[in-house]
Amino acid sequence: MKQSARQVRADGSSIGFVPTMGALHAGHLSLVRSALAECHPVIASIFVNPTQFGPHEDFQKYPRTMEADSQQLEDAGVDYLFAPDALEMYPRGFRTWVNVEGLSECLEGRVRQGHFRGVTTVVLKLLEIVQPQKAYFGRKDAQQGRIIQQMARDLHLDSEIVVCPIVREPDGLAMSSRNVYLNSDERRAATILFRALDGARASIAHGERDALRIKAAIREMLRAEPLAEPEYAELVDAETLESVTRLRRACLALVAVRIGRVRLIDNLLIEERDGAFLTKL
Amino acid sequence: MKQSARQVRADGSSIGFVPTMGALHAGHLSLVRSALAECHPVIASIFVNPTQFGPHEDFQKYPRTMEADSQQLEDAGVDYLFAPDALEMYPRGFRTWVNVEGLSECLEGRVRQGHFRGVTTVVLKLLEIVQPQKAYFGRKDAQQGRIIQQMARDLHLDSEIVVCPIVREPDGLAMSSRNVYLNSDERRAATILFRALDGARASIAHGERDALRIKAAIREMLRAEPLAEPEYAELVDAETLESVTRLRRACLALVAVRIGRVRLIDNLLIEERDGAFLTKL
Repeated sequence: MKQSARQVRADGSSIGFVPTMGALHAGHLSLVRSALAECHPVIASIFVNPTQFGPHEDFQKYPRTMEADSQQLEDAGVDYLFAPDALEMYPRGFRTWVNVEGLSECLEGRVRQGHFRGVTTVVLKLLEIVQPQKAYFGRKDAQQGRIIQQMARDLHLDSEIVVCPIVREPDGLAMSSRNVYLNSDERRAATILFRALDGARASIAHGERDALRIKAAIREMLRAEPLAEPEYAELVDAETLESVTRLRRACLALVAVRIGRVRLIDNLLIEERDGAFLTKL
Repeated sequence: MKQSARQVRADGSSIGFVPTMGALHAGHLSLVRSALAECHPVIASIFVNPTQFGPHEDFQKYPRTMEADSQQLEDAGVDYLFAPDALEMYPRGFRTWVNVEGLSECLEGRVRQGHFRGVTTVVLKLLEIVQPQKAYFGRKDAQQGRIIQQMARDLHLDSEIVVCPIVREPDGLAMSSRNVYLNSDERRAATILFRALDGARASIAHGERDALRIKAAIREMLRAEPLAEPEYAELVDAETLESVTRLRRACLALVAVRIGRVRLIDNLLIEERDGAFLTKL
Protein backbone atom coordinates (compact mmCIF):
# COMPACT_ATOMS: atom_id res chain seq x y z
CA MET A 1 0.00 0.00 0.00
CA LYS A 2 2.83 2.35 0.91
CA GLN A 3 4.52 1.66 -2.40
CA SER A 4 1.35 2.05 -4.47
CA ALA A 5 0.48 5.29 -2.72
CA ARG A 6 4.01 6.61 -3.23
CA GLN A 7 3.83 5.86 -6.96
CA VAL A 8 0.47 7.58 -7.22
CA ARG A 9 1.77 10.67 -5.43
CA ALA A 10 4.86 10.73 -7.64
CA ASP A 11 2.49 11.12 -10.62
CA GLY A 12 1.19 14.30 -8.99
CA SER A 13 -2.19 12.78 -8.14
CA SER A 14 -4.00 13.86 -4.99
CA ILE A 15 -5.16 10.90 -2.97
CA GLY A 16 -8.51 10.92 -1.17
CA PHE A 17 -8.65 8.49 1.74
CA VAL A 18 -11.65 6.97 3.52
CA PRO A 19 -10.60 4.91 6.55
CA THR A 20 -13.32 2.57 7.83
CA MET A 21 -13.83 -0.44 10.07
CA GLY A 22 -15.97 -2.08 7.39
CA ALA A 23 -19.62 -3.09 7.91
CA LEU A 24 -20.26 -0.33 5.45
CA HIS A 25 -23.48 1.69 5.29
CA ALA A 26 -24.73 4.77 3.46
CA GLY A 27 -22.71 6.99 5.80
CA HIS A 28 -19.44 5.45 4.63
CA LEU A 29 -20.55 5.64 1.02
CA SER A 30 -21.26 9.36 1.39
CA LEU A 31 -17.63 9.78 2.50
CA VAL A 32 -16.54 7.90 -0.62
CA ARG A 33 -18.66 10.19 -2.80
CA SER A 34 -17.13 13.28 -1.19
CA ALA A 35 -13.66 11.84 -1.79
CA LEU A 36 -14.44 10.97 -5.42
CA ALA A 37 -15.70 14.50 -6.03
CA GLU A 38 -12.47 16.09 -4.77
CA CYS A 39 -9.62 13.62 -5.29
CA HIS A 40 -8.22 11.00 -7.58
CA PRO A 41 -7.48 8.23 -6.83
CA VAL A 42 -9.62 7.31 -3.84
CA ILE A 43 -8.27 4.77 -1.36
CA ALA A 44 -10.50 3.17 1.27
CA SER A 45 -9.30 1.06 4.16
CA ILE A 46 -11.09 -1.60 6.16
CA PHE A 47 -9.47 -2.38 9.49
CA VAL A 48 -11.29 -3.29 12.68
CA ASN A 49 -8.75 -1.67 14.96
CA PRO A 50 -8.34 -3.73 18.13
CA THR A 51 -6.66 -0.94 20.11
CA GLN A 52 -9.70 1.33 20.09
CA PHE A 53 -11.94 -1.29 21.75
CA GLY A 54 -12.01 -1.67 25.53
CA PRO A 55 -11.62 -5.11 27.12
CA HIS A 56 -15.41 -5.43 27.62
CA GLU A 57 -16.42 -3.96 24.27
CA ASP A 58 -17.57 -5.59 21.05
CA PHE A 59 -14.28 -6.12 19.18
CA GLN A 60 -14.86 -9.85 18.71
CA LYS A 61 -18.45 -9.54 17.54
CA TYR A 62 -18.06 -6.26 15.63
CA PRO A 63 -19.78 -6.94 12.28
CA ARG A 64 -17.34 -8.10 9.58
CA THR A 65 -18.74 -8.15 6.04
CA MET A 66 -15.61 -7.96 3.92
CA GLU A 67 -17.02 -9.40 0.71
CA ALA A 68 -20.07 -7.18 0.61
CA ASP A 69 -17.95 -4.22 1.66
CA SER A 70 -15.36 -4.61 -1.08
CA GLN A 71 -18.11 -5.03 -3.68
CA GLN A 72 -19.79 -1.85 -2.48
CA LEU A 73 -16.52 0.09 -2.58
CA GLU A 74 -15.75 -1.16 -6.07
CA ASP A 75 -19.25 -0.29 -7.30
CA ALA A 76 -18.92 3.16 -5.75
CA GLY A 77 -15.73 3.79 -7.74
CA VAL A 78 -13.04 3.39 -5.08
CA ASP A 79 -9.65 2.78 -6.72
CA TYR A 80 -7.78 0.93 -3.94
CA LEU A 81 -8.89 -1.02 -0.90
CA PHE A 82 -6.36 -1.38 1.91
CA ALA A 83 -7.31 -4.16 4.33
CA PRO A 84 -4.29 -4.96 6.50
CA ASP A 85 -3.92 -7.72 9.07
CA ALA A 86 -3.90 -6.86 12.75
CA LEU A 87 -0.37 -8.28 12.90
CA GLU A 88 0.81 -6.06 10.06
CA MET A 89 -0.49 -3.01 11.87
CA TYR A 90 0.59 -4.14 15.34
CA PRO A 91 3.58 -6.46 14.98
CA ARG A 92 5.24 -8.00 18.02
CA GLY A 93 7.04 -5.27 19.93
CA PHE A 94 4.76 -2.46 18.76
CA ARG A 95 4.91 0.28 21.39
CA THR A 96 4.29 3.74 19.96
CA TRP A 97 1.13 5.60 20.93
CA VAL A 98 -0.26 8.97 19.96
CA ASN A 99 -2.54 10.80 22.35
CA VAL A 100 -4.37 14.11 21.99
CA GLU A 101 -4.51 15.21 25.62
CA GLY A 102 -7.42 17.20 26.97
CA LEU A 103 -9.79 16.20 24.16
CA SER A 104 -9.57 12.42 24.58
CA GLU A 105 -10.60 12.01 28.23
CA CYS A 106 -14.08 13.57 28.19
CA LEU A 107 -17.42 12.35 26.73
CA GLU A 108 -16.73 9.14 24.75
CA GLY A 109 -13.24 9.00 26.24
CA ARG A 110 -14.61 8.94 29.77
CA VAL A 111 -16.92 6.00 29.03
CA ARG A 112 -14.44 4.27 26.71
CA GLN A 113 -11.05 4.58 28.41
CA GLY A 114 -8.15 4.46 25.98
CA HIS A 115 -10.51 4.53 22.99
CA PHE A 116 -9.18 7.69 21.40
CA ARG A 117 -5.57 6.76 21.98
CA GLY A 118 -6.31 3.70 19.83
CA VAL A 119 -8.09 5.83 17.25
CA THR A 120 -5.40 8.50 16.92
CA THR A 121 -2.63 5.90 16.81
CA VAL A 122 -4.23 3.86 14.04
CA VAL A 123 -5.31 6.92 12.07
CA LEU A 124 -1.79 8.37 12.20
CA LYS A 125 -0.40 5.02 11.02
CA LEU A 126 -2.89 4.87 8.15
CA LEU A 127 -2.17 8.48 7.20
CA GLU A 128 1.57 7.73 7.16
CA ILE A 129 1.03 4.73 4.92
CA VAL A 130 -1.36 6.37 2.46
CA GLN A 131 -0.28 10.03 2.81
CA PRO A 132 -3.51 11.32 1.30
CA GLN A 133 -4.18 14.94 0.42
CA LYS A 134 -7.56 14.63 2.13
CA ALA A 135 -8.95 12.09 4.59
CA TYR A 136 -12.69 11.81 5.20
CA PHE A 137 -14.49 11.12 8.49
CA GLY A 138 -18.18 11.21 9.44
CA ARG A 139 -19.52 13.80 11.88
CA LYS A 140 -21.52 11.14 13.74
CA ASP A 141 -18.25 10.65 15.63
CA ALA A 142 -17.86 14.38 16.23
CA GLN A 143 -15.34 14.10 19.06
CA GLN A 144 -13.21 11.75 16.98
CA GLY A 145 -13.25 14.21 14.08
CA ARG A 146 -12.20 17.07 16.35
CA ILE A 147 -9.38 15.01 17.89
CA ILE A 148 -8.03 13.88 14.52
CA GLN A 149 -8.08 17.45 13.21
CA GLN A 150 -6.09 18.54 16.28
CA MET A 151 -3.58 15.71 15.78
CA ALA A 152 -3.10 16.63 12.13
CA ARG A 153 -2.49 20.27 13.07
CA ASP A 154 -0.14 19.52 15.99
CA LEU A 155 1.94 17.04 13.98
CA HIS A 156 2.09 19.17 10.81
CA LEU A 157 0.54 16.41 8.70
CA ASP A 158 0.08 17.11 5.01
CA SER A 159 -3.38 15.52 5.02
CA GLU A 160 -6.45 17.72 5.33
CA ILE A 161 -9.03 16.17 7.67
CA VAL A 162 -12.53 16.56 6.20
CA VAL A 163 -15.51 15.93 8.49
CA CYS A 164 -18.66 15.11 6.49
CA PRO A 165 -22.36 15.39 7.43
CA ILE A 166 -24.18 12.66 9.32
CA VAL A 167 -26.26 10.34 7.12
CA ARG A 168 -29.52 9.25 8.70
CA GLU A 169 -32.22 6.63 8.22
CA PRO A 170 -35.59 8.01 7.07
CA ASP A 171 -36.77 8.18 10.70
CA GLY A 172 -33.68 10.14 11.78
CA LEU A 173 -31.51 7.40 13.31
CA ALA A 174 -27.87 8.14 12.51
CA MET A 175 -26.32 5.42 10.34
CA SER A 176 -23.99 3.18 12.34
CA SER A 177 -22.50 -0.26 11.84
CA ARG A 178 -23.81 -1.08 15.32
CA ASN A 179 -27.46 -0.49 14.35
CA VAL A 180 -27.64 -4.11 13.14
CA TYR A 181 -27.42 -5.20 16.80
CA LEU A 182 -30.84 -3.63 17.55
CA ASN A 183 -33.96 -5.79 17.68
CA SER A 184 -37.16 -4.26 16.33
CA ASP A 185 -38.34 -2.70 19.62
CA GLU A 186 -34.88 -1.31 20.26
CA ARG A 187 -34.70 -0.05 16.68
CA ARG A 188 -37.87 1.97 17.25
CA ALA A 189 -36.61 3.27 20.60
CA ALA A 190 -33.26 4.22 19.01
CA THR A 191 -34.82 7.22 17.25
CA ILE A 192 -34.92 8.91 20.65
CA LEU A 193 -31.36 10.26 20.09
CA PHE A 194 -32.46 12.03 16.93
CA ARG A 195 -35.74 13.20 18.42
CA ALA A 196 -34.09 14.64 21.50
CA LEU A 197 -31.52 16.53 19.41
CA ASP A 198 -34.25 17.64 16.99
CA GLY A 199 -36.14 19.06 19.97
CA ALA A 200 -33.01 21.02 20.90
CA ARG A 201 -32.76 22.25 17.34
CA ALA A 202 -36.36 23.51 17.44
CA SER A 203 -35.85 25.33 20.73
CA ILE A 204 -32.67 26.99 19.40
CA ALA A 205 -34.62 28.07 16.31
CA HIS A 206 -37.11 29.67 18.68
CA GLY A 207 -34.37 31.68 20.36
CA GLU A 208 -33.18 29.48 23.24
CA ARG A 209 -29.52 30.32 24.07
CA ASP A 210 -29.21 28.81 27.55
CA ALA A 211 -27.11 25.67 27.23
CA LEU A 212 -28.19 24.30 30.60
CA ARG A 213 -31.87 24.48 29.63
CA ILE A 214 -31.17 22.91 26.23
CA LYS A 215 -29.24 20.09 27.91
CA ALA A 216 -31.96 19.55 30.51
CA ALA A 217 -34.60 19.26 27.80
CA ILE A 218 -32.51 16.71 25.88
CA ARG A 219 -31.97 14.66 29.05
CA GLU A 220 -35.67 14.75 29.86
CA MET A 221 -36.58 13.43 26.41
CA LEU A 222 -33.97 10.66 26.63
CA ARG A 223 -35.26 9.60 30.05
CA ALA A 224 -38.81 9.42 28.72
CA GLU A 225 -37.88 6.48 26.46
CA PRO A 226 -38.17 3.33 28.60
CA LEU A 227 -35.72 1.25 26.52
CA ALA A 228 -33.05 3.97 26.56
CA GLU A 229 -30.39 4.26 29.24
CA PRO A 230 -28.75 7.65 28.71
CA GLU A 231 -24.98 7.74 29.32
CA TYR A 232 -24.43 11.42 28.77
CA ALA A 233 -26.01 14.46 27.16
CA GLU A 234 -23.68 17.43 27.00
CA LEU A 235 -23.40 20.78 25.32
CA VAL A 236 -19.80 21.72 24.66
CA ASP A 237 -17.62 24.14 22.74
CA ALA A 238 -16.84 22.45 19.42
CA GLU A 239 -13.16 23.43 19.64
CA THR A 240 -12.28 22.71 23.27
CA LEU A 241 -15.04 20.13 24.01
CA GLU A 242 -15.55 21.94 27.34
CA SER A 243 -19.07 22.46 28.68
CA VAL A 244 -20.67 25.81 27.93
CA THR A 245 -23.48 27.55 29.77
CA ARG A 246 -24.63 29.66 26.81
CA LEU A 247 -24.45 29.01 23.08
CA ARG A 248 -21.43 30.63 21.42
CA ARG A 249 -19.35 30.38 18.23
CA ALA A 250 -19.58 26.67 17.46
CA CYS A 251 -21.06 24.16 19.88
CA LEU A 252 -21.95 20.51 19.88
CA ALA A 253 -24.85 18.87 21.68
CA LEU A 254 -23.68 15.28 22.13
CA VAL A 255 -25.63 12.28 23.38
CA ALA A 256 -24.70 8.69 24.15
CA VAL A 257 -27.38 6.17 25.02
CA ARG A 258 -27.48 2.47 25.75
CA ILE A 259 -30.37 0.62 24.20
CA GLY A 260 -30.28 -2.99 25.24
CA ARG A 261 -26.64 -3.98 24.82
CA VAL A 262 -25.97 -1.41 22.09
CA ARG A 263 -24.28 1.97 22.62
CA LEU A 264 -25.43 4.65 20.23
CA ILE A 265 -24.14 8.20 19.86
CA ASP A 266 -25.39 11.22 17.96
CA ASN A 267 -24.90 14.97 17.95
CA LEU A 268 -26.16 18.34 16.82
CA LEU A 269 -23.76 20.97 15.50
CA ILE A 270 -24.70 24.55 16.40
CA GLU A 271 -22.82 27.34 14.61
CA GLU A 272 -23.08 31.06 15.01
CA ARG A 273 -23.28 33.11 11.82
CA ASP A 274 -23.78 36.87 12.13
CA GLY A 275 -25.53 36.54 15.48
CA ALA A 276 -27.87 33.74 14.35
CA PHE A 277 -27.37 30.12 15.35
CA LEU A 278 -27.56 27.57 12.55
CA THR A 279 -27.99 23.92 13.47
CA LYS A 280 -26.92 20.79 11.64
CA LEU A 281 -28.27 17.40 12.61
CA MET B 1 10.35 24.87 5.75
CA LYS B 2 7.48 22.55 4.85
CA GLN B 3 7.07 24.24 1.48
CA SER B 4 10.79 24.29 0.68
CA ALA B 5 11.13 20.64 1.63
CA ARG B 6 8.09 19.71 -0.46
CA GLN B 7 9.60 21.47 -3.50
CA VAL B 8 12.91 19.72 -2.99
CA ARG B 9 11.20 16.32 -2.76
CA ALA B 10 9.13 17.08 -5.87
CA ASP B 11 12.44 17.40 -7.75
CA GLY B 12 13.23 13.86 -6.74
CA SER B 13 15.97 14.86 -4.33
CA SER B 14 16.57 12.83 -1.18
CA ILE B 15 16.78 15.03 1.87
CA GLY B 16 19.24 14.31 4.67
CA PHE B 17 18.19 15.80 7.98
CA VAL B 18 20.25 16.59 11.09
CA PRO B 19 18.07 17.76 13.99
CA THR B 20 19.99 19.50 16.78
CA MET B 21 19.48 21.72 19.81
CA GLY B 22 22.36 23.94 18.66
CA ALA B 23 25.52 24.54 20.75
CA LEU B 24 27.17 22.55 18.01
CA HIS B 25 30.31 20.51 18.48
CA ALA B 26 32.31 18.01 16.43
CA GLY B 27 29.69 15.31 17.11
CA HIS B 28 27.00 17.30 15.34
CA LEU B 29 29.36 18.10 12.48
CA SER B 30 30.08 14.39 12.01
CA LEU B 31 26.32 13.87 11.55
CA VAL B 32 26.35 16.61 8.94
CA ARG B 33 29.24 14.93 7.13
CA SER B 34 27.38 11.59 7.11
CA ALA B 35 24.29 13.32 5.74
CA LEU B 36 26.29 15.15 3.04
CA ALA B 37 27.88 11.87 1.94
CA GLU B 38 24.50 10.17 1.43
CA CYS B 39 21.90 12.85 0.65
CA HIS B 40 21.29 16.08 -1.14
CA PRO B 41 20.18 18.55 0.05
CA VAL B 42 21.05 18.47 3.74
CA ILE B 43 18.76 20.27 6.17
CA ALA B 44 19.78 20.93 9.76
CA SER B 45 17.50 22.20 12.49
CA ILE B 46 18.29 24.08 15.67
CA PHE B 47 15.55 23.97 18.25
CA VAL B 48 16.04 23.83 22.01
CA ASN B 49 12.93 21.77 22.64
CA PRO B 50 11.29 22.88 25.90
CA THR B 51 9.16 19.73 26.25
CA GLN B 52 12.12 17.41 26.72
CA PHE B 53 13.44 19.31 29.73
CA GLY B 54 12.11 18.60 33.21
CA PRO B 55 11.01 21.48 35.48
CA HIS B 56 14.33 21.44 37.38
CA GLU B 57 16.56 20.92 34.36
CA ASP B 58 18.70 23.34 32.37
CA PHE B 59 16.29 24.55 29.65
CA GLN B 60 16.80 28.23 30.52
CA LYS B 61 20.58 28.05 30.69
CA TYR B 62 21.10 25.47 27.92
CA PRO B 63 23.89 26.98 25.76
CA ARG B 64 22.54 28.99 22.83
CA THR B 65 25.11 29.97 20.20
CA MET B 66 22.96 30.54 17.12
CA GLU B 67 25.37 32.78 15.20
CA ALA B 68 28.38 30.52 15.58
CA ASP B 69 26.16 27.47 14.89
CA SER B 70 24.73 28.77 11.65
CA GLN B 71 28.19 29.78 10.46
CA GLN B 72 29.51 26.29 11.23
CA LEU B 73 26.62 24.64 9.40
CA GLU B 74 27.10 26.88 6.38
CA ASP B 75 30.83 26.21 6.33
CA ALA B 76 30.15 22.48 6.57
CA GLY B 77 27.94 22.63 3.47
CA VAL B 78 24.46 22.39 4.98
CA ASP B 79 21.87 23.62 2.48
CA TYR B 80 19.03 24.69 4.77
CA LEU B 81 18.85 25.64 8.44
CA PHE B 82 15.46 25.34 10.10
CA ALA B 83 15.31 27.25 13.39
CA PRO B 84 11.68 27.56 14.46
CA ASP B 85 10.23 29.50 17.37
CA ALA B 86 8.94 27.62 20.41
CA LEU B 87 5.53 29.15 19.67
CA GLU B 88 5.57 27.90 16.08
CA MET B 89 6.29 24.39 17.31
CA TYR B 90 3.97 24.54 20.31
CA PRO B 91 1.22 27.04 19.56
CA ARG B 92 -1.54 27.74 22.09
CA GLY B 93 -3.77 24.69 22.34
CA PHE B 94 -1.07 22.19 21.35
CA ARG B 95 -2.02 18.83 22.86
CA THR B 96 -0.71 15.89 20.82
CA TRP B 97 1.98 13.67 22.31
CA VAL B 98 3.80 10.64 21.00
CA ASN B 99 5.16 8.09 23.43
CA VAL B 100 7.17 4.93 22.84
CA GLU B 101 6.05 2.82 25.78
CA GLY B 102 8.36 0.37 27.48
CA LEU B 103 11.54 2.00 26.12
CA SER B 104 10.97 5.51 27.48
CA GLU B 105 10.58 4.81 31.21
CA CYS B 106 13.92 3.15 32.01
CA LEU B 107 17.49 4.53 32.27
CA GLU B 108 17.40 8.20 31.17
CA GLY B 109 13.60 8.11 31.26
CA ARG B 110 13.60 7.09 34.92
CA VAL B 111 15.85 9.99 35.95
CA ARG B 112 14.30 12.45 33.46
CA GLN B 113 10.54 11.85 33.65
CA GLY B 114 8.71 12.82 30.49
CA HIS B 115 12.00 13.47 28.68
CA PHE B 116 11.51 10.96 25.87
CA ARG B 117 7.87 11.90 25.34
CA GLY B 118 9.16 15.39 24.58
CA VAL B 119 11.89 13.98 22.33
CA THR B 120 9.65 11.68 20.29
CA THR B 121 6.97 14.34 19.94
CA VAL B 122 9.36 17.00 18.64
CA VAL B 123 11.25 14.56 16.41
CA LEU B 124 8.01 13.34 14.83
CA LYS B 125 6.95 16.94 14.24
CA LEU B 126 10.30 17.77 12.64
CA LEU B 127 10.18 14.62 10.49
CA GLU B 128 6.66 15.55 9.32
CA ILE B 129 7.82 19.04 8.38
CA VAL B 130 11.03 18.03 6.59
CA GLN B 131 10.10 14.48 5.47
CA PRO B 132 13.72 13.50 4.92
CA GLN B 133 14.86 10.25 3.39
CA LYS B 134 17.36 9.88 6.22
CA ALA B 135 17.63 11.54 9.62
CA TYR B 136 20.88 11.43 11.60
CA PHE B 137 21.32 11.05 15.34
CA GLY B 138 24.39 10.51 17.52
CA ARG B 139 24.90 7.26 19.43
CA LYS B 140 25.96 9.17 22.56
CA ASP B 141 22.19 9.27 23.20
CA ALA B 142 21.82 5.55 22.52
CA GLN B 143 18.44 5.15 24.21
CA GLN B 144 17.09 8.11 22.25
CA GLY B 145 18.29 6.59 18.99
CA ARG B 146 16.67 3.26 19.81
CA ILE B 147 13.35 4.94 20.75
CA ILE B 148 13.26 7.06 17.60
CA GLN B 149 13.97 4.01 15.43
CA GLN B 150 11.08 2.20 17.13
CA MET B 151 8.77 5.18 16.57
CA ALA B 152 9.69 5.37 12.89
CA ARG B 153 8.98 1.65 12.48
CA ASP B 154 5.70 1.67 14.42
CA LEU B 155 4.36 4.73 12.59
CA HIS B 156 5.49 3.58 9.12
CA LEU B 157 7.55 6.75 8.60
CA ASP B 158 9.35 7.11 5.28
CA SER B 159 12.46 8.41 7.00
CA GLU B 160 15.32 6.07 7.78
CA ILE B 161 16.80 6.76 11.21
CA VAL B 162 20.60 6.60 11.08
CA VAL B 163 22.52 6.39 14.36
CA CYS B 164 26.14 7.57 13.97
CA PRO B 165 29.24 6.84 16.06
CA ILE B 166 30.11 8.82 19.17
CA VAL B 167 32.70 11.54 18.62
CA ARG B 168 35.14 11.96 21.54
CA GLU B 169 37.65 14.46 22.81
CA PRO B 170 41.30 13.29 22.61
CA ASP B 171 41.07 12.04 26.23
CA GLY B 172 37.93 10.02 25.50
CA LEU B 173 35.20 12.31 26.88
CA ALA B 174 32.14 12.04 24.62
CA MET B 175 31.33 15.34 22.91
CA SER B 176 28.32 17.04 24.48
CA SER B 177 26.93 20.55 24.47
CA ARG B 178 26.84 20.30 28.27
CA ASN B 179 30.63 19.79 28.57
CA VAL B 180 31.02 23.60 28.59
CA TYR B 181 29.46 23.61 32.06
CA LEU B 182 32.44 21.70 33.51
CA ASN B 183 35.18 23.57 35.38
CA SER B 184 38.73 22.31 34.89
CA ASP B 185 38.72 19.84 37.81
CA GLU B 186 35.34 18.49 36.71
CA ARG B 187 36.53 18.31 33.13
CA ARG B 188 39.40 16.05 34.20
CA ALA B 189 37.08 13.92 36.35
CA ALA B 190 34.61 13.63 33.46
CA THR B 191 36.85 11.19 31.61
CA ILE B 192 35.80 8.59 34.19
CA LEU B 193 32.78 7.65 32.02
CA PHE B 194 35.03 6.79 29.10
CA ARG B 195 37.62 5.08 31.28
CA ALA B 196 35.03 2.89 33.01
CA LEU B 197 33.50 1.82 29.68
CA ASP B 198 36.95 1.31 28.20
CA GLY B 199 37.72 -1.01 31.12
CA ALA B 200 34.59 -2.99 30.27
CA ARG B 201 35.72 -3.15 26.65
CA ALA B 202 39.09 -4.55 27.69
CA SER B 203 37.53 -7.23 29.91
CA ILE B 204 35.13 -8.26 27.11
CA ALA B 205 38.11 -8.49 24.76
CA HIS B 206 39.65 -10.84 27.33
CA GLY B 207 36.59 -13.08 27.24
CA GLU B 208 34.34 -11.75 30.00
CA ARG B 209 30.67 -12.57 29.15
CA ASP B 210 29.05 -12.12 32.56
CA ALA B 211 27.03 -8.90 32.41
CA LEU B 212 26.77 -8.59 36.19
CA ARG B 213 30.54 -8.71 36.61
CA ILE B 214 31.05 -6.20 33.80
CA LYS B 215 28.48 -3.88 35.38
CA ALA B 216 30.04 -4.24 38.84
CA ALA B 217 33.46 -3.34 37.46
CA ILE B 218 32.07 -0.24 35.73
CA ARG B 219 30.34 0.85 38.94
CA GLU B 220 33.47 0.35 40.98
CA MET B 221 35.50 2.53 38.61
CA LEU B 222 32.86 5.26 38.65
CA ARG B 223 32.75 5.23 42.46
CA ALA B 224 36.53 5.60 42.60
CA GLU B 225 36.33 9.10 41.09
CA PRO B 226 35.65 11.49 44.00
CA LEU B 227 34.00 14.22 41.86
CA ALA B 228 31.66 11.74 40.15
CA GLU B 229 28.22 10.84 41.50
CA PRO B 230 27.08 7.82 39.47
CA GLU B 231 23.34 7.78 38.61
CA TYR B 232 23.24 4.45 36.88
CA ALA B 233 25.46 1.90 35.15
CA GLU B 234 23.49 -0.77 33.31
CA LEU B 235 24.03 -3.47 30.77
CA VAL B 236 20.96 -3.98 28.60
CA ASP B 237 19.76 -5.64 25.42
CA ALA B 238 20.15 -3.02 22.67
CA GLU B 239 16.68 -3.82 21.26
CA THR B 240 14.51 -4.10 24.38
CA LEU B 241 16.70 -2.03 26.77
CA GLU B 242 16.06 -4.71 29.39
CA SER B 243 18.86 -5.80 31.72
CA VAL B 244 20.81 -8.89 30.67
CA THR B 245 22.84 -11.22 32.83
CA ARG B 246 25.09 -12.47 30.01
CA LEU B 247 26.25 -10.79 26.81
CA ARG B 248 24.11 -11.69 23.77
CA ARG B 249 23.31 -10.43 20.27
CA ALA B 250 23.63 -6.66 20.73
CA CYS B 251 23.98 -5.05 24.13
CA LEU B 252 24.63 -1.59 25.48
CA ALA B 253 26.57 -0.69 28.59
CA LEU B 254 25.14 2.68 29.61
CA VAL B 255 26.33 5.09 32.27
CA ALA B 256 25.00 8.35 33.66
CA VAL B 257 27.04 10.38 36.10
CA ARG B 258 26.67 13.70 37.84
CA ILE B 259 29.83 15.76 38.03
CA GLY B 260 29.17 18.94 39.97
CA ARG B 261 25.89 20.21 38.53
CA VAL B 262 26.39 18.56 35.14
CA ARG B 263 24.82 15.27 34.07
CA LEU B 264 26.91 13.30 31.60
CA ILE B 265 26.03 10.08 29.78
CA ASP B 266 28.04 7.66 27.69
CA ASN B 267 27.77 4.11 26.43
CA LEU B 268 29.55 1.14 24.93
CA LEU B 269 27.93 -0.88 22.13
CA ILE B 270 28.66 -4.61 22.25
CA GLU B 271 27.73 -6.67 19.19
CA GLU B 272 28.01 -10.36 18.60
CA ARG B 273 29.44 -11.42 15.23
CA ASP B 274 29.99 -15.15 14.65
CA GLY B 275 30.40 -15.86 18.34
CA ALA B 276 32.83 -13.01 18.96
CA PHE B 277 31.83 -9.80 20.72
CA LEU B 278 32.86 -6.57 19.01
CA THR B 279 32.75 -3.36 21.02
CA LYS B 280 32.25 0.24 19.91
CA LEU B 281 32.98 3.14 22.21
